[in-house]
Amino acid sequence: MRVIRYHDGAVRHGILEDDGTIQPVLGGLFDGLKPYGQATHLDRVQLLSPLDPRSIYGVGLNYVKHAREVNKPLPTVPMLFMKPVGTVVGPQAPIVLPKEGGIVHFEAEVAVVIGRVARRVDERTAGECIFGYTCGNDVSERVIQGKEMDQGTLLVGKAFDTFNPLGPAIATGLDPENIDIIGRVNGEVRQSSNTSDLVYSIRKLVSYLSQAITLYPGDVIMSGTPEGVGPIAPGDVVEIEIPEAGVLRNPVVAEET
Amino acid sequence: MRVIRYHDGAVRHGILEDDGTIQPVLGGLFDGLKPYGQATHLDRVQLLSPLDPRSIYGVGLNYVKHAREVNKPLPTVPMLFMKPVGTVVGPQAPIVLPKEGGIVHFEAEVAVVIGRVARRVDERTAGECIFGYTCGNDVSERVIQGKEMDQGTLLVGKAFDTFNPLGPAIATGLDPENIDIIGRVNGEVRQSSNTSDLVYSIRKLVSYLSQAITLYPGDVIMSGTPEGVGPIAPGDVVEIEIPEAGVLRNPVVAEET
Repeated sequence: MRVIRYHDGAVRHGILEDDGTIQPVLGGLFDGLKPYGQATHLDRVQLLSPLDPRSIYGVGLNYVKHAREVNKPLPTVPMLFMKPVGTVVGPQAPIVLPKEGGIVHFEAEVAVVIGRVARRVDERTAGECIFGYTCGNDVSERVIQGKEMDQGTLLVGKAFDTFNPLGPAIATGLDPENIDIIGRVNGEVRQSSNTSDLVYSIRKLVSYLSQAITLYPGDVIMSGTPEGVGPIAPGDVVEIEIPEAGVLRNPVVAEET
Repeated sequence: MRVIRYHDGAVRHGILEDDGTIQPVLGGLFDGLKPYGQATHLDRVQLLSPLDPRSIYGVGLNYVKHAREVNKPLPTVPMLFMKPVGTVVGPQAPIVLPKEGGIVHFEAEVAVVIGRVARRVDERTAGECIFGYTCGNDVSERVIQGKEMDQGTLLVGKAFDTFNPLGPAIATGLDPENIDIIGRVNGEVRQSSNTSDLVYSIRKLVSYLSQAITLYPGDVIMSGTPEGVGPIAPGDVVEIEIPEAGVLRNPVVAEET
Protein backbone atom coordinates (compact mmCIF):
# COMPACT_ATOMS: atom_id res chain seq x y z
CA MET A 1 0.00 0.00 0.00
CA ARG A 2 1.15 3.54 -0.72
CA VAL A 3 0.04 6.32 1.62
CA ILE A 4 0.39 9.97 0.63
CA ARG A 5 -0.38 13.36 2.12
CA TYR A 6 -1.73 16.04 -0.17
CA HIS A 7 -3.48 19.37 -0.43
CA ASP A 8 -6.70 19.79 -2.39
CA GLY A 9 -8.06 22.78 -0.47
CA ALA A 10 -7.43 20.98 2.81
CA VAL A 11 -4.55 18.77 3.94
CA ARG A 12 -5.48 15.09 3.78
CA HIS A 13 -3.95 11.64 3.80
CA GLY A 14 -4.93 9.12 1.15
CA ILE A 15 -4.16 5.75 -0.42
CA LEU A 16 -2.56 6.04 -3.85
CA GLU A 17 -3.49 3.45 -6.49
CA ASP A 18 -1.32 2.49 -9.47
CA ASP A 19 -3.51 4.47 -11.90
CA GLY A 20 -3.11 7.67 -9.86
CA THR A 21 -6.46 7.41 -8.10
CA ILE A 22 -6.36 8.66 -4.52
CA GLN A 23 -8.76 7.37 -1.89
CA PRO A 24 -8.82 9.86 0.98
CA VAL A 25 -8.76 8.44 4.51
CA LEU A 26 -10.10 9.66 7.81
CA GLY A 27 -7.63 11.53 10.01
CA GLY A 28 -3.89 11.13 10.04
CA LEU A 29 -1.38 8.41 9.21
CA PHE A 30 -1.90 6.56 12.47
CA ASP A 31 -5.68 6.73 12.68
CA GLY A 32 -6.42 3.46 10.90
CA LEU A 33 -6.46 4.68 7.25
CA LYS A 34 -10.23 4.26 6.90
CA PRO A 35 -11.54 5.31 3.45
CA TYR A 36 -13.54 8.51 3.76
CA GLY A 37 -15.09 10.71 1.09
CA GLN A 38 -14.78 10.89 -2.69
CA ALA A 39 -11.77 9.56 -4.57
CA THR A 40 -9.63 12.07 -6.45
CA HIS A 41 -6.58 11.87 -8.72
CA LEU A 42 -2.87 12.66 -8.50
CA ASP A 43 -3.32 15.24 -11.29
CA ARG A 44 -5.72 17.29 -9.20
CA VAL A 45 -3.80 17.59 -5.92
CA GLN A 46 -0.56 18.99 -4.58
CA LEU A 47 1.61 16.35 -2.93
CA LEU A 48 3.12 17.18 0.46
CA SER A 49 5.77 15.35 2.45
CA PRO A 50 3.92 12.21 3.56
CA LEU A 51 4.25 13.29 7.19
CA ASP A 52 5.54 16.07 9.41
CA PRO A 53 7.98 13.97 11.40
CA ARG A 54 7.97 14.17 15.17
CA SER A 55 11.76 13.72 15.20
CA ILE A 56 14.34 12.79 12.58
CA TYR A 57 17.30 10.52 13.34
CA GLY A 58 20.16 10.25 10.85
CA VAL A 59 22.89 7.64 10.45
CA GLY A 60 26.36 8.22 9.01
CA LEU A 61 28.57 5.79 7.05
CA ASN A 62 26.02 2.99 7.00
CA TYR A 63 26.98 1.52 3.61
CA VAL A 64 30.48 0.01 3.27
CA LYS A 65 31.21 1.50 -0.15
CA HIS A 66 30.09 4.99 0.93
CA ALA A 67 32.49 4.86 3.91
CA ARG A 68 35.23 3.92 1.42
CA GLU A 69 34.42 6.76 -0.98
CA VAL A 70 34.78 9.33 1.82
CA ASN A 71 37.93 7.60 3.18
CA LYS A 72 36.50 6.87 6.60
CA PRO A 73 36.66 3.70 8.69
CA LEU A 74 33.38 1.92 9.37
CA PRO A 75 31.78 3.05 12.62
CA THR A 76 32.20 0.89 15.71
CA VAL A 77 28.83 2.06 17.07
CA PRO A 78 26.02 3.48 14.90
CA MET A 79 27.01 7.04 13.92
CA LEU A 80 23.82 8.82 14.93
CA PHE A 81 22.67 12.42 14.84
CA MET A 82 19.38 14.32 14.60
CA LYS A 83 18.03 16.71 11.98
CA PRO A 84 15.59 19.52 12.84
CA VAL A 85 12.04 18.89 11.60
CA GLY A 86 12.17 22.21 9.71
CA THR A 87 14.48 20.56 7.16
CA VAL A 88 11.52 18.62 5.74
CA VAL A 89 9.99 19.58 2.41
CA GLY A 90 7.77 17.59 0.07
CA PRO A 91 7.95 16.49 -3.54
CA GLN A 92 8.75 19.27 -6.05
CA ALA A 93 9.69 21.74 -3.31
CA PRO A 94 13.04 23.42 -3.92
CA ILE A 95 16.20 22.47 -2.04
CA VAL A 96 17.62 25.90 -1.16
CA LEU A 97 21.41 26.16 -1.23
CA PRO A 98 22.29 28.57 1.58
CA LYS A 99 24.63 31.43 0.91
CA GLU A 100 27.08 29.81 3.36
CA GLY A 101 26.94 26.59 1.38
CA GLY A 102 30.31 25.83 -0.16
CA ILE A 103 29.78 22.21 -1.12
CA VAL A 104 26.28 20.80 -0.84
CA HIS A 105 25.73 17.09 -1.55
CA PHE A 106 22.59 15.05 -2.17
CA GLU A 107 22.23 11.73 -0.30
CA ALA A 108 19.60 9.18 -1.35
CA GLU A 109 18.27 7.30 1.66
CA VAL A 110 15.52 4.97 2.75
CA ALA A 111 13.52 6.92 5.35
CA VAL A 112 11.91 4.62 7.91
CA VAL A 113 8.62 5.81 9.43
CA ILE A 114 7.91 4.53 12.94
CA GLY A 115 4.28 3.53 13.48
CA ARG A 116 4.19 2.15 17.04
CA VAL A 117 5.85 3.08 20.30
CA ALA A 118 9.18 1.26 20.52
CA ARG A 119 11.04 0.93 23.82
CA ARG A 120 13.84 -1.62 24.16
CA VAL A 121 12.58 -3.73 21.28
CA ASP A 122 14.87 -6.47 20.02
CA GLU A 123 15.98 -6.84 16.44
CA ARG A 124 13.58 -9.69 15.81
CA THR A 125 10.45 -7.69 16.71
CA ALA A 126 11.65 -4.22 15.65
CA GLY A 127 9.88 -4.57 12.30
CA GLU A 128 6.49 -4.52 14.03
CA CYS A 129 7.15 -0.90 15.08
CA ILE A 130 7.70 0.26 11.48
CA PHE A 131 4.81 1.84 9.60
CA GLY A 132 6.55 2.04 6.23
CA TYR A 133 9.30 3.50 4.07
CA THR A 134 9.63 6.61 1.95
CA CYS A 135 12.37 8.29 -0.07
CA GLY A 136 14.58 10.73 1.79
CA ASN A 137 17.31 13.11 0.69
CA ASP A 138 19.76 13.79 3.52
CA VAL A 139 21.15 16.99 1.96
CA SER A 140 24.50 17.93 3.52
CA GLU A 141 26.79 20.95 3.44
CA ARG A 142 30.24 19.35 3.58
CA VAL A 143 32.43 22.27 4.70
CA ILE A 144 30.50 22.97 7.89
CA GLN A 145 29.84 19.24 8.37
CA GLY A 146 33.58 18.57 8.30
CA LYS A 147 34.40 21.29 10.83
CA GLU A 148 31.64 20.09 13.15
CA MET A 149 32.56 16.40 12.96
CA ASP A 150 36.24 17.18 13.63
CA GLN A 151 35.02 18.53 16.98
CA GLY A 152 32.82 15.50 17.62
CA THR A 153 29.26 16.67 16.95
CA LEU A 154 27.11 17.30 13.87
CA LEU A 155 24.18 19.64 13.37
CA VAL A 156 24.33 22.65 11.07
CA GLY A 157 25.93 20.86 8.10
CA LYS A 158 22.82 18.66 7.91
CA ALA A 159 20.28 21.14 9.25
CA PHE A 160 19.65 24.01 6.85
CA ASP A 161 15.97 24.55 6.10
CA THR A 162 14.87 22.37 3.09
CA PHE A 163 17.73 19.86 3.68
CA ASN A 164 15.45 16.85 4.11
CA PRO A 165 13.01 16.24 1.23
CA LEU A 166 10.69 13.29 1.95
CA GLY A 167 8.15 11.50 -0.25
CA PRO A 168 6.23 10.98 -2.37
CA ALA A 169 4.45 7.99 -0.75
CA ILE A 170 5.07 5.84 2.29
CA ALA A 171 5.18 2.23 1.09
CA THR A 172 4.04 -0.34 3.63
CA GLY A 173 4.68 -4.08 3.81
CA LEU A 174 8.24 -4.03 2.42
CA ASP A 175 11.04 -6.29 3.63
CA PRO A 176 13.38 -3.84 5.39
CA GLU A 177 16.36 -5.91 4.29
CA ASN A 178 15.54 -5.75 0.59
CA ILE A 179 14.61 -2.19 -0.43
CA ASP A 180 16.13 -0.68 -3.56
CA ILE A 181 17.33 2.90 -3.23
CA ILE A 182 18.31 4.99 -6.26
CA GLY A 183 19.63 8.56 -6.55
CA ARG A 184 19.65 10.54 -9.80
CA VAL A 185 20.81 14.05 -10.69
CA ASN A 186 19.38 15.54 -13.88
CA GLY A 187 18.19 12.08 -14.92
CA GLU A 188 21.58 10.39 -14.51
CA VAL A 189 21.80 7.51 -12.01
CA ARG A 190 24.41 8.36 -9.39
CA GLN A 191 23.47 6.03 -6.56
CA SER A 192 21.94 2.56 -6.77
CA SER A 193 21.95 0.18 -3.86
CA ASN A 194 19.78 -1.94 -1.64
CA THR A 195 19.24 -2.04 2.11
CA SER A 196 20.74 -5.55 2.08
CA ASP A 197 24.08 -3.68 1.91
CA LEU A 198 23.53 -1.71 5.15
CA VAL A 199 26.16 -2.00 7.87
CA TYR A 200 23.47 -1.62 10.56
CA SER A 201 20.22 -3.02 9.18
CA ILE A 202 16.98 -1.10 9.56
CA ARG A 203 15.74 -3.51 12.25
CA LYS A 204 19.06 -3.17 14.05
CA LEU A 205 18.84 0.65 13.97
CA VAL A 206 15.30 0.63 15.36
CA SER A 207 16.34 -1.79 18.10
CA TYR A 208 19.54 0.10 18.94
CA LEU A 209 17.86 3.52 19.13
CA SER A 210 15.01 2.09 21.20
CA GLN A 211 17.42 0.94 23.92
CA ALA A 212 17.99 4.63 24.79
CA ILE A 213 15.17 6.60 23.24
CA THR A 214 11.49 5.70 23.25
CA LEU A 215 10.47 5.96 19.59
CA TYR A 216 6.97 7.20 18.75
CA PRO A 217 4.69 7.10 15.71
CA GLY A 218 5.87 9.80 13.34
CA ASP A 219 9.56 9.48 14.17
CA VAL A 220 11.70 9.04 11.06
CA ILE A 221 15.04 7.26 10.75
CA MET A 222 17.13 8.24 7.74
CA SER A 223 18.99 4.95 7.34
CA GLY A 224 22.15 6.16 5.61
CA THR A 225 23.30 6.76 2.06
CA PRO A 226 25.11 4.43 -0.33
CA GLU A 227 28.12 5.33 -2.49
CA GLY A 228 27.79 7.88 -5.29
CA VAL A 229 27.02 11.08 -3.39
CA GLY A 230 28.10 14.32 -5.02
CA PRO A 231 27.62 18.06 -5.26
CA ILE A 232 24.44 19.75 -6.48
CA ALA A 233 24.09 23.22 -7.96
CA PRO A 234 21.25 25.63 -8.74
CA GLY A 235 19.28 24.34 -11.73
CA ASP A 236 19.87 20.69 -10.91
CA VAL A 237 16.98 18.32 -10.29
CA VAL A 238 17.55 15.55 -7.77
CA GLU A 239 15.48 12.37 -7.81
CA ILE A 240 15.43 9.75 -5.09
CA GLU A 241 13.56 6.56 -5.86
CA ILE A 242 12.33 3.58 -3.93
CA PRO A 243 10.34 1.66 -6.58
CA GLU A 244 7.41 0.88 -4.26
CA ALA A 245 7.28 4.47 -2.84
CA GLY A 246 7.76 6.39 -6.08
CA VAL A 247 10.15 9.12 -7.18
CA LEU A 248 10.93 12.09 -4.92
CA ARG A 249 11.88 14.93 -7.28
CA ASN A 250 13.24 18.29 -6.05
CA PRO A 251 14.79 21.18 -7.95
CA VAL A 252 17.86 22.92 -6.52
CA VAL A 253 17.85 26.71 -6.21
CA ALA A 254 20.19 29.31 -4.71
CA GLU A 255 19.04 31.25 -1.67
CA GLU A 256 17.72 34.70 -2.51
CA THR A 257 20.05 37.27 -0.98
CA MET B 1 7.91 37.15 35.75
CA ARG B 2 8.00 33.41 36.38
CA VAL B 3 5.85 31.13 34.25
CA ILE B 4 5.18 27.53 35.27
CA ARG B 5 3.24 24.58 33.95
CA TYR B 6 1.41 22.40 36.41
CA HIS B 7 -1.23 19.78 36.94
CA ASP B 8 -4.19 20.30 39.27
CA GLY B 9 -6.59 17.92 37.58
CA ALA B 10 -5.83 19.52 34.22
CA VAL B 11 -2.56 20.76 32.70
CA ARG B 12 -2.29 24.56 32.93
CA HIS B 13 0.21 27.35 32.66
CA GLY B 14 0.36 30.00 35.36
CA ILE B 15 2.28 32.94 36.77
CA LEU B 16 4.13 32.12 39.99
CA GLU B 17 4.34 34.82 42.67
CA ASP B 18 7.02 35.01 45.36
CA ASP B 19 4.62 33.76 48.05
CA GLY B 20 3.79 30.63 46.04
CA THR B 21 0.50 31.94 44.68
CA ILE B 22 -0.19 30.77 41.14
CA GLN B 23 -2.38 32.80 38.81
CA PRO B 24 -3.53 30.48 36.00
CA VAL B 25 -3.44 31.88 32.46
CA LEU B 26 -5.47 31.19 29.36
CA GLY B 27 -3.97 28.70 26.91
CA GLY B 28 -0.31 27.93 26.44
CA LEU B 29 2.99 29.73 26.92
CA PHE B 30 2.70 31.70 23.72
CA ASP B 31 -0.96 32.71 23.94
CA GLY B 32 -0.45 36.02 25.77
CA LEU B 33 -0.43 34.80 29.40
CA LYS B 34 -3.83 36.34 30.17
CA PRO B 35 -5.00 35.70 33.76
CA TYR B 36 -7.90 33.25 33.74
CA GLY B 37 -9.73 31.61 36.61
CA GLN B 38 -9.04 31.29 40.32
CA ALA B 39 -5.59 31.59 41.83
CA THR B 40 -4.11 28.51 43.51
CA HIS B 41 -0.91 27.72 45.39
CA LEU B 42 2.32 25.83 44.77
CA ASP B 43 1.45 23.46 47.62
CA ARG B 44 -1.69 22.31 45.87
CA VAL B 45 -0.36 21.48 42.40
CA GLN B 46 2.13 19.16 40.70
CA LEU B 47 4.80 21.05 38.78
CA LEU B 48 5.57 19.85 35.25
CA SER B 49 8.42 20.81 32.93
CA PRO B 50 7.49 24.39 31.98
CA LEU B 51 7.06 23.32 28.37
CA ASP B 52 7.17 20.32 26.06
CA PRO B 53 9.90 21.60 23.76
CA ARG B 54 9.38 21.48 20.03
CA SER B 55 13.11 20.76 19.54
CA ILE B 56 16.14 20.81 21.85
CA TYR B 57 19.53 22.08 20.69
CA GLY B 58 22.61 21.43 22.84
CA VAL B 59 26.04 23.07 22.86
CA GLY B 60 29.30 21.44 23.91
CA LEU B 61 32.35 23.04 25.56
CA ASN B 62 30.81 26.48 25.86
CA TYR B 63 32.55 27.54 29.09
CA VAL B 64 36.35 27.90 28.99
CA LYS B 65 36.98 26.18 32.34
CA HIS B 66 34.73 23.23 31.45
CA ALA B 67 36.70 22.69 28.22
CA ARG B 68 39.87 22.69 30.37
CA GLU B 69 38.51 20.17 32.88
CA VAL B 70 37.74 17.68 30.10
CA ASN B 71 41.08 18.39 28.36
CA LYS B 72 39.56 19.58 25.11
CA PRO B 73 40.45 22.58 22.96
CA LEU B 74 37.82 25.30 22.64
CA PRO B 75 35.57 24.77 19.62
CA THR B 76 36.28 26.75 16.45
CA VAL B 77 32.58 26.70 15.53
CA PRO B 78 29.74 26.16 18.03
CA MET B 79 29.70 22.45 18.96
CA LEU B 80 26.03 21.74 18.35
CA PHE B 81 23.86 18.67 18.64
CA MET B 82 20.20 17.86 19.29
CA LYS B 83 18.51 15.95 22.09
CA PRO B 84 15.25 14.02 21.57
CA VAL B 85 12.22 15.66 23.19
CA GLY B 86 11.55 12.45 25.10
CA THR B 87 14.52 13.27 27.35
CA VAL B 88 12.47 16.00 29.06
CA VAL B 89 11.12 15.50 32.57
CA GLY B 90 9.89 18.03 35.08
CA PRO B 91 10.82 18.94 38.66
CA GLN B 92 11.02 16.00 41.11
CA ALA B 93 10.83 13.41 38.31
CA PRO B 94 13.57 10.80 38.55
CA ILE B 95 16.63 10.76 36.31
CA VAL B 96 16.81 7.09 35.35
CA LEU B 97 20.34 5.68 34.97
CA PRO B 98 20.09 3.18 32.12
CA LYS B 99 21.51 -0.28 32.59
CA GLU B 100 24.05 0.55 29.85
CA GLY B 101 25.13 3.62 31.80
CA GLY B 102 28.73 3.30 32.85
CA ILE B 103 29.45 6.90 33.83
CA VAL B 104 26.52 9.32 33.95
CA HIS B 105 27.21 13.00 34.64
CA PHE B 106 24.93 15.89 35.57
CA GLU B 107 25.41 19.18 33.70
CA ALA B 108 23.81 22.39 35.02
CA GLU B 109 22.77 24.64 32.13
CA VAL B 110 20.76 27.73 31.32
CA ALA B 111 17.98 26.53 29.00
CA VAL B 112 16.86 29.25 26.60
CA VAL B 113 13.20 29.13 25.49
CA ILE B 114 12.51 30.63 22.06
CA GLY B 115 9.33 32.72 21.92
CA ARG B 116 9.26 34.11 18.38
CA VAL B 117 10.17 32.78 14.95
CA ALA B 118 13.85 33.50 14.32
CA ARG B 119 15.33 33.30 10.82
CA ARG B 120 18.72 34.87 10.11
CA VAL B 121 18.49 37.23 13.07
CA ASP B 122 21.63 39.12 14.01
CA GLU B 123 23.22 39.05 17.45
CA ARG B 124 21.87 42.50 18.31
CA THR B 125 18.20 41.57 17.79
CA ALA B 126 18.42 37.88 18.79
CA GLY B 127 17.24 38.69 22.32
CA GLU B 128 13.81 39.69 20.97
CA CYS B 129 13.22 36.07 19.94
CA ILE B 130 13.81 34.74 23.46
CA PHE B 131 10.81 34.08 25.68
CA GLY B 132 12.78 33.31 28.84
CA TYR B 133 15.16 31.04 30.70
CA THR B 134 14.80 27.94 32.81
CA CYS B 135 17.11 25.48 34.54
CA GLY B 136 18.23 22.51 32.48
CA ASN B 137 20.21 19.39 33.31
CA ASP B 138 21.99 18.03 30.23
CA VAL B 139 22.52 14.54 31.67
CA SER B 140 25.21 12.65 29.76
CA GLU B 141 26.47 9.08 29.62
CA ARG B 142 30.21 9.57 29.07
CA VAL B 143 31.27 6.14 27.77
CA ILE B 144 28.86 6.11 24.83
CA GLN B 145 29.31 9.88 24.36
CA GLY B 146 33.07 9.38 23.99
CA LYS B 147 32.72 6.58 21.43
CA GLU B 148 30.21 8.59 19.43
CA MET B 149 32.23 11.82 19.44
CA ASP B 150 35.40 9.98 18.38
CA GLN B 151 33.44 9.12 15.21
CA GLY B 152 32.20 12.70 14.78
CA THR B 153 28.57 12.65 15.88
CA LEU B 154 26.70 12.64 19.19
CA LEU B 155 23.28 11.30 20.04
CA VAL B 156 22.76 8.35 22.38
CA GLY B 157 25.15 9.53 25.11
CA LYS B 158 22.89 12.56 25.60
CA ALA B 159 19.59 10.99 24.60
CA PHE B 160 18.39 8.42 27.12
CA ASP B 161 14.83 8.99 28.30
CA THR B 162 14.82 11.35 31.37
CA PHE B 163 18.22 12.88 30.42
CA ASN B 164 16.91 16.46 30.19
CA PRO B 165 15.13 17.74 33.32
CA LEU B 166 13.73 21.26 32.82
CA GLY B 167 12.15 23.72 35.27
CA PRO B 168 10.73 24.75 37.60
CA ALA B 169 9.77 28.17 36.14
CA ILE B 170 10.67 30.07 33.00
CA ALA B 171 12.01 33.46 34.11
CA THR B 172 11.43 36.30 31.68
CA GLY B 173 13.16 39.66 31.36
CA LEU B 174 16.68 38.51 32.33
CA ASP B 175 19.86 39.84 30.77
CA PRO B 176 21.13 36.81 28.79
CA GLU B 177 24.69 37.87 29.50
CA ASN B 178 24.30 37.87 33.26
CA ILE B 179 22.47 34.76 34.46
CA ASP B 180 23.80 32.80 37.43
CA ILE B 181 23.80 29.03 37.04
CA ILE B 182 24.44 26.67 39.95
CA GLY B 183 24.62 22.88 40.17
CA ARG B 184 24.41 20.92 43.41
CA VAL B 185 24.53 17.22 44.25
CA ASN B 186 23.11 16.17 47.61
CA GLY B 187 23.16 19.81 48.70
CA GLU B 188 26.83 20.39 47.87
CA VAL B 189 27.61 23.11 45.31
CA ARG B 190 29.51 21.54 42.40
CA GLN B 191 29.02 24.10 39.67
CA SER B 192 28.67 27.87 40.00
CA SER B 193 29.06 30.19 37.06
CA ASN B 194 27.39 32.93 35.07
CA THR B 195 26.50 33.24 31.40
CA SER B 196 28.98 36.14 31.19
CA ASP B 197 31.60 33.32 31.00
CA LEU B 198 30.09 31.68 27.90
CA VAL B 199 32.37 31.22 24.89
CA TYR B 200 29.40 31.72 22.53
CA SER B 201 26.91 34.01 24.26
CA ILE B 202 23.21 33.17 24.27
CA ARG B 203 22.47 35.90 21.72
CA LYS B 204 25.28 34.60 19.53
CA LEU B 205 23.93 31.03 19.72
CA VAL B 206 20.42 32.15 18.73
CA SER B 207 21.83 34.18 15.86
CA TYR B 208 24.19 31.42 14.69
CA LEU B 209 21.53 28.69 14.76
CA SER B 210 19.03 30.94 13.00
CA GLN B 211 21.35 31.36 10.00
CA ALA B 212 20.69 27.71 9.15
CA ILE B 213 17.60 26.65 11.04
CA THR B 214 14.38 28.62 11.44
CA LEU B 215 13.76 28.61 15.19
CA TYR B 216 10.16 28.48 16.46
CA PRO B 217 8.39 29.21 19.73
CA GLY B 218 8.95 26.26 22.01
CA ASP B 219 12.43 25.45 20.75
CA VAL B 220 14.95 25.15 23.57
CA ILE B 221 18.68 25.83 23.48
CA MET B 222 20.71 24.20 26.26
CA SER B 223 23.52 26.75 26.36
CA GLY B 224 26.35 24.62 27.72
CA THR B 225 27.65 23.62 31.14
CA PRO B 226 30.35 25.25 33.27
CA GLU B 227 33.17 23.42 35.10
CA GLY B 228 32.41 21.06 37.94
CA VAL B 229 30.46 18.28 36.21
CA GLY B 230 30.71 14.86 37.76
CA PRO B 231 29.12 11.42 38.14
CA ILE B 232 25.76 10.76 39.73
CA ALA B 233 24.53 7.53 41.30
CA PRO B 234 21.21 6.08 42.46
CA GLY B 235 20.07 7.85 45.61
CA ASP B 236 21.66 11.19 44.67
CA VAL B 237 19.56 14.32 44.36
CA VAL B 238 20.66 16.84 41.72
CA GLU B 239 19.67 20.49 41.95
CA ILE B 240 20.11 23.05 39.21
CA GLU B 241 19.40 26.66 40.13
CA ILE B 242 18.93 29.91 38.30
CA PRO B 243 17.95 32.29 41.13
CA GLU B 244 15.15 33.95 39.14
CA ALA B 245 13.78 30.62 37.81
CA GLY B 246 14.02 28.57 41.00
CA VAL B 247 15.57 25.23 41.87
CA LEU B 248 15.15 22.19 39.60
CA ARG B 249 15.44 19.15 41.86
CA ASN B 250 15.56 15.57 40.56
CA PRO B 251 16.38 12.31 42.33
CA VAL B 252 18.57 9.75 40.58
CA VAL B 253 17.37 6.15 40.32
CA ALA B 254 18.60 3.00 38.64
CA GLU B 255 16.58 1.55 35.79
CA GLU B 256 14.41 -1.37 36.84
CA THR B 257 15.63 -4.49 35.12
